[in-house]
Amino acid sequence: MRHFYSLNEFSSEQIGEFVNRALAFKENPYSEVLDHRQIALLFLNQSLRTRCSFEVATRELGGDVSTLDAETLFALETEFGKRMDGASAEHVKEAIGVFSRYFSALGLRSFARGEDQQEDLLDKTFTTFLEHAKIPVFNMESALYHPCQALADLVTIKELFQDFQGRKVTITWANHPRALPMAVTNSALLAMTKMGMHVTLAHPEKFELQEGIMNMAGDFAGESGGSVEVVHDRLEAAADADVVYAKSWGSLLRYDDPAAEQDLRDSLKDWVVDSEMMSRTRRAYFMHCLPVRRNVVVNDDVIDSNRSVVLQEAENRLHAQKAILEWIFS
Amino acid sequence: MRHFYSLNEFSSEQIGEFVNRALAFKENPYSEVLDHRQIALLFLNQSLRTRCSFEVATRELGGDVSTLDAETLFALETEFGKRMDGASAEHVKEAIGVFSRYFSALGLRSFARGEDQQEDLLDKTFTTFLEHAKIPVFNMESALYHPCQALADLVTIKELFQDFQGRKVTITWANHPRALPMAVTNSALLAMTKMGMHVTLAHPEKFELQEGIMNMAGDFAGESGGSVEVVHDRLEAAADADVVYAKSWGSLLRYDDPAAEQDLRDSLKDWVVDSEMMSRTRRAYFMHCLPVRRNVVVNDDVIDSNRSVVLQEAENRLHAQKAILEWIFS
Amino acid sequence: MRHFYSLNEFSSEQIGEFVNRALAFKENPYSEVLDHRQIALLFLNQSLRTRCSFEVATRELGGDVSTLDAETLFALETEFGKRMDGASAEHVKEAIGVFSRYFSALGLRSFARGEDQQEDLLDKTFTTFLEHAKIPVFNMESALYHPCQALADLVTIKELFQDFQGRKVTITWANHPRALPMAVTNSALLAMTKMGMHVTLAHPEKFELQEGIMNMAGDFAGESGGSVEVVHDRLEAAADADVVYAKSWGSLLRYDDPAAEQDLRDSLKDWVVDSEMMSRTRRAYFMHCLPVRRNVVVNDDVIDSNRSVVLQEAENRLHAQKAILEWIFS
Repeated sequence: MRHFYSLNEFSSEQIGEFVNRALAFKENPYSEVLDHRQIALLFLNQSLRTRCSFEVATRELGGDVSTLDAETLFALETEFGKRMDGASAEHVKEAIGVFSRYFSALGLRSFARGEDQQEDLLDKTFTTFLEHAKIPVFNMESALYHPCQALADLVTIKELFQDFQGRKVTITWANHPRALPMAVTNSALLAMTKMGMHVTLAHPEKFELQEGIMNMAGDFAGESGGSVEVVHDRLEAAADADVVYAKSWGSLLRYDDPAAEQDLRDSLKDWVVDSEMMSRTRRAYFMHCLPVRRNVVVNDDVIDSNRSVVLQEAENRLHAQKAILEWIFS
Repeated sequence: MRHFYSLNEFSSEQIGEFVNRALAFKENPYSEVLDHRQIALLFLNQSLRTRCSFEVATRELGGDVSTLDAETLFALETEFGKRMDGASAEHVKEAIGVFSRYFSALGLRSFARGEDQQEDLLDKTFTTFLEHAKIPVFNMESALYHPCQALADLVTIKELFQDFQGRKVTITWANHPRALPMAVTNSALLAMTKMGMHVTLAHPEKFELQEGIMNMAGDFAGESGGSVEVVHDRLEAAADADVVYAKSWGSLLRYDDPAAEQDLRDSLKDWVVDSEMMSRTRRAYFMHCLPVRRNVVVNDDVIDSNRSVVLQEAENRLHAQKAILEWIFS
Repeated sequence: MRHFYSLNEFSSEQIGEFVNRALAFKENPYSEVLDHRQIALLFLNQSLRTRCSFEVATRELGGDVSTLDAETLFALETEFGKRMDGASAEHVKEAIGVFSRYFSALGLRSFARGEDQQEDLLDKTFTTFLEHAKIPVFNMESALYHPCQALADLVTIKELFQDFQGRKVTITWANHPRALPMAVTNSALLAMTKMGMHVTLAHPEKFELQEGIMNMAGDFAGESGGSVEVVHDRLEAAADADVVYAKSWGSLLRYDDPAAEQDLRDSLKDWVVDSEMMSRTRRAYFMHCLPVRRNVVVNDDVIDSNRSVVLQEAENRLHAQKAILEWIFS
């Protein structure tokens, strides 16, 4: 039984093969790999791209899809051993057990909640599903990872440059009114270092990623011939970049002192991808996972320019996810 | 690429052809025109008939359907050039761009919001989608128009009278606890005048439709041999009618003085379709788009009588929409 | 036209045939009985098992499914003859009429609301749908009955014991933070007595089921050679049981004095299925319809033991519902 949790577990060769399969599906959208398969998509958080692209992917591979939103189910309890006399009416253990009886595979979206650092660091909801499921579970963004996005990003980079090795990507933090999770950044950083890219991670102080993620990225870069460096000056970070990859996330401060974290973030409104920043690059492409807050994360003139590939990334979600679904059932 | 925004753009011959195709689908429900097509239905507002009938229509034409509700997506921003630091997390421009990458066509429901007259008059949300979409967009009720309803109504009238020319329809305003949009009335009035019908529009003073709509209806009537007149006495309006078509809408007052609009509406509770009104007609059929508030808009004895064709209209939504989907992909 | 409202209307032979068909579908999941059929599932309340299992069942029988949640439709009015100037925008009479025009059958979930005893006793919402529908309506849990659950339970018992006759089931009330409906208990009790089982119904005083249900269960037991007795001591009730079937429900007190009902329920926290209770049985299986509140209704060690068959029951929902859908269209 094949779960799909993150790209970390895969070799660069296997990831390259996913990219190639995605590009093949972009040419020929249909297959019968999900014939007679019922796929469930469970969204504990909002979605546009993921919901639409997995629904379409499932059907174009011959399967059927049930899309489930948290609010139409019973409120789920994730603690074990608890007396369930509060708001939660159903334990995830039963929910997972039941899904396993009806479906061939389950996609799960469970964002970091930003309340309990340990819970988010351990990717608790998602790993609970992994542990108890009797069917393959695939990650539609968990507290820690968004591997479908990272794979779509690699597909896009492959289309733009034909190769990964030696290309320079600047992953830059950006301002945002809310403290967002780190999953997209984690997955992009790890996928790119794994594929031999040179990643400059630009963020203000106190917006460090988790140490374990940074260490893993360093290891991946060491193995692949890539590199990773951290820079606190956004313009300096953009120098000679082939790609500027923007994403906002909340500081780890959010867990202990959310008000201070908000104040800090509010003081960083100049962290927006603007034409000045893009002018430092090697005519870089602009990438973002979407949804994006215009003129907060990136200015209109950048995202509307012909170097912006955000829709190409979004489209490649569809093709990348077909490659993943195909792998799960191979 | 064929958008379907309103019936105004079509000749009476083409509309007649839509009606005929709808009646043909009523006989033979299936086709393969949507084979391998993924259709998205995006509801920014509630729906029963439209959701169900478009889901069934899509599948009976061989396609697949993804139904999307506003609350499961990210909150959409429709302003351009704005710094998006408020509640909206995604700009419609990206949303439309993404839908265009996954789907073959997009249906959109976006009611008038009743807050900004200019926004509603320009049908801003819908026209923004039209402008930026790379796939056909069809109208599941916008601020200004509900062409699927108008077409279903024409199908119903054709079934009842075999022809449109010269038949008299009384479109009557009705009381309602809320200030509703004008889209259904606009579309019915314009479709009927286009097809050569004599329309008497009955409403209390201050419930005028927009001037541009009235002018267009006059032009259509001039070309078709139909007519349009406005009457402020509901009983007088019903005289010799073949059809009484009821609908409530809010006064344009709502934009400047909502409290006065509410007071005015509350004073008009006698504007209900009752047996006295029906007795003035030529044994008229009763039509309404549904949902309808019983004993507010129409009395039980009228809607439950054998002259009521409200369910026939609702059923014809299904067949009419198949004609539209077929046209989009022809 | 075949509605499916409860198992009460069926002979034990026909119920046995449903069980056999369900077991056959467990072996061979697919059929074409719903080819070219559009099925609507209308949920006025939350669901996990019912939604998923009916979606999968419909598709595996060759049909298409539209799943509708109350909040995406217009608020429904169930009173007749009323002036609809309140929150409800659409009368069920129109809603049912419209569904009847688009779909081949309609599944409805409408829980007891616990506000008006007469309304719940008469299963008002569900019976209104039955009365006005022009298509088959099937019960996905109404105020009074949950026949799909009862049938899945019988399938499970058949798998465990090969036969029903003479087996002893203890249906035990359990504590719960909320006053739940009685539908599951009613249907289990009636189905089991109908099939010749010996049912011990254990509950605290003031948690009597409705008199009409108890009388019907007595009649069924009389005809089938089964029996039914009521016991107020949970441990005594478990003696020699083959199955312990747990379920919570609110006292009828809730209608007249909800605060007193809550106090009474709060005083009954020892009504939990624990290992002591299970030790009194004949190595009984533990059954529950799910969702279940762990350590309130049943302790972890019981539900996690190898005598717990709650997931088997949930899976059998899928197979049982295929038998019902097949019957509706036979």
